[in-house]
Amino acid sequence: MMQPFQPPVRTLLGPGPSDVAPSVLRALSAPTLGHLDPRLFVAMDELRAALRPVFGTANPATFVLSGTGTSGMEAVLANLIEPGDGVLVPVHGYFGARVAEIAARCGAEVTRVDGEWGRASDPARAKAALGGRRIKLVAVVHAETSTGVRQDLAPWRDLAREQGALLVADTVTSLGCIPIDADTNGVDGAWSCTQKGLSCASGMAPVTFSPRAVERVKARARKVQSFYLDLGLLLDYWDAPHGYHHTMSSNLLCGVHEALRLVHEEGLTKRFERTTRVSRACAKGFEALGLELLVPEAERLPQLLAVRIPEGVDDVRVRSRLLAKHDLEIGGGLGPLKGKLWRIGLMGHGATRKNVLTLLSALRLALESEGFRAKADGAAVAERELGD
Amino acid sequence: MMQPFQPPVRTLLGPGPSDVAPSVLRALSAPTLGHLDPRLFVAMDELRAALRPVFGTANPATFVLSGTGTSGMEAVLANLIEPGDGVLVPVHGYFGARVAEIAARCGAEVTRVDGEWGRASDPARAKAALGGRRIKLVAVVHAETSTGVRQDLAPWRDLAREQGALLVADTVTSLGCIPIDADTNGVDGAWSCTQKGLSCASGMAPVTFSPRAVERVKARARKVQSFYLDLGLLLDYWDAPHGYHHTMSSNLLCGVHEALRLVHEEGLTKRFERTTRVSRACAKGFEALGLELLVPEAERLPQLLAVRIPEGVDDVRVRSRLLAKHDLEIGGGLGPLKGKLWRIGLMGHGATRKNVLTLLSALRLALESEGFRAKADGAAVAERELGD
Repeated sequence: MMQPFQPPVRTLLGPGPSDVAPSVLRALSAPTLGHLDPRLFVAMDELRAALRPVFGTANPATFVLSGTGTSGMEAVLANLIEPGDGVLVPVHGYFGARVAEIAARCGAEVTRVDGEWGRASDPARAKAALGGRRIKLVAVVHAETSTGVRQDLAPWRDLAREQGALLVADTVTSLGCIPIDADTNGVDGAWSCTQKGLSCASGMAPVTFSPRAVERVKARARKVQSFYLDLGLLLDYWDAPHGYHHTMSSNLLCGVHEALRLVHEEGLTKRFERTTRVSRACAKGFEALGLELLVPEAERLPQLLAVRIPEGVDDVRVRSRLLAKHDLEIGGGLGPLKGKLWRIGLMGHGATRKNVLTLLSALRLALESEGFRAKADGAAVAERELGD
Repeated sequence: MMQPFQPPVRTLLGPGPSDVAPSVLRALSAPTLGHLDPRLFVAMDELRAALRPVFGTANPATFVLSGTGTSGMEAVLANLIEPGDGVLVPVHGYFGARVAEIAARCGAEVTRVDGEWGRASDPARAKAALGGRRIKLVAVVHAETSTGVRQDLAPWRDLAREQGALLVADTVTSLGCIPIDADTNGVDGAWSCTQKGLSCASGMAPVTFSPRAVERVKARARKVQSFYLDLGLLLDYWDAPHGYHHTMSSNLLCGVHEALRLVHEEGLTKRFERTTRVSRACAKGFEALGLELLVPEAERLPQLLAVRIPEGVDDVRVRSRLLAKHDLEIGGGLGPLKGKLWRIGLMGHGATRKNVLTLLSALRLALESEGFRAKADGAAVAERELGD
């Protein structure tokens, strides 16, 4: 006989999902509505209006897809790439590599420019790597979830403009944590997720397309290879008179709606400041413990800190201990960084003093159980840094 | 200032979503878990074990995708089709046409055989339409959501076997409502949704692939065009040791887990019987009112009844009235059937005596407000049919 599943209450300090606010969890279990219910359309419009300032855009074509962040990546690329198109992808982490992989599956001629994992990419180097090749799209990762690197978008806009290309950005780990300023930065397409900076459950992918990008999709010679992620069909659903395309989950939509409401209740500027303040204290706490951060401060995302695992300390044993003893989740490394670093997310609702204190205390005990001697009391240092 | 969204409590008697049980709604708001949490893996294994008998399969490659039913359709087709492959698609409704459309976007040479909307397709006619063409895939709609037609699978298995082709089936509207018997019927791939026969919120797509289908995907010459829906990558996540692919929503998973638990608590046979019994009574009620059903009884799905809208009765006005006055949702027609019929779903948790009574009473009043004179009291007839 199958038993009900009762998940434990974790503190989620990995690279996502982040801690979900109680009112967002409640919204997920609101009464289900049909995908063509006129009351749902009102909530969808409110959601779109609330999402635009978080992306920093006025794009009408801003909405959420019925899939996770990776579906958002695939949607933006599959709609904007036609077979044979030149696409420039600077890669300095796992998700840049994923962008290049998906672009190739869309039939792009990808110029992939690999940089150091843990540093931002250099636009001048990428430009040189192009040689004389013409490109139609530049695809960059604004916030590299595998390393915690922030990539400034403005130089890539300039490179894209020189080429007459569009600029698209992976904002999976930036939306709701740091400013994206999509319009100011000339971003023509961006994708994100709901389970990091917005602190909702995963399952939907916020996306935005500039009017130029929408025109590009309309002018395609070939149909988009994905029917499920076809922008024209999706907009036929999201825009009045709301034709049928797929059965969007009203329950997920209610969760995202409430998560965005909380973002605006706090205020974007305050939210960004809180994230930065809490993260800076946490970083000082790590350093006090004697841990080294992967990314130099100038390129570091506040919402995702990558910490090198000290020599002689076992990655899996530490993470398992945190989970088993403290119901506390942190992330491991991806790809070549597996076993070499931990990823600590301080995102949205989870970027709190309490979480920093819990993490630094629990991590210190775990490190000591591995024979690592902490330099100082990281939790006390972070607490002092945060003030009252 | 953005206000919390408080959806009304609807009775969902359209073609999906169906009414969701209270314990399933509660499960959606269970504490969020990371997508790599060992406790989540246990629940995922339980879910897979519970899902297989609903499909009627022992396929190890049975799981749920992070997207709606349409993503399931796209996943099965995109994994099993390589450019240039011959694919046979009998079309007798909106979703057969969608299968043909997606297969074409996957690069298939589609032989589309159109039949009457409201009747099942004829395998002999489809075979004749092939002429001498060889095909690699036969894709049929087991339960056509646009018309409520049931398509027997066994004759298509025989046709597929003759051709050395695989057979795949759209079971979006059949899973949890009627037997699919995937293994007995030689189904190599099937997709479904969570918001109809399983009575969960939408957002995930149950899928199953036979071992032969998995081999076909492994032997592909080209990568699957979708990274998000790539079977190999998805199985790397669902199977131990569970590598990262995308951030599956633990909240949706909890909902589907609980929905499947309820299916087995009732028992599959009992659930199928209840659906048939309740539907037969509802159909008699429609006939008593003087309404005509689109599909002859032998080919009719119990879980989805298509009723012709009588001459002089306004489709939208009636459905708006039901929604506004009674919080009751039924579906309209799709494509060429728009304005011509209503679709009434009696699926999963929603296939109840009470819902039939409410619907027939409310519909009678709505019809009378349009000047249509009911032949008899449909609700009383249905009630009598159901007995005690």
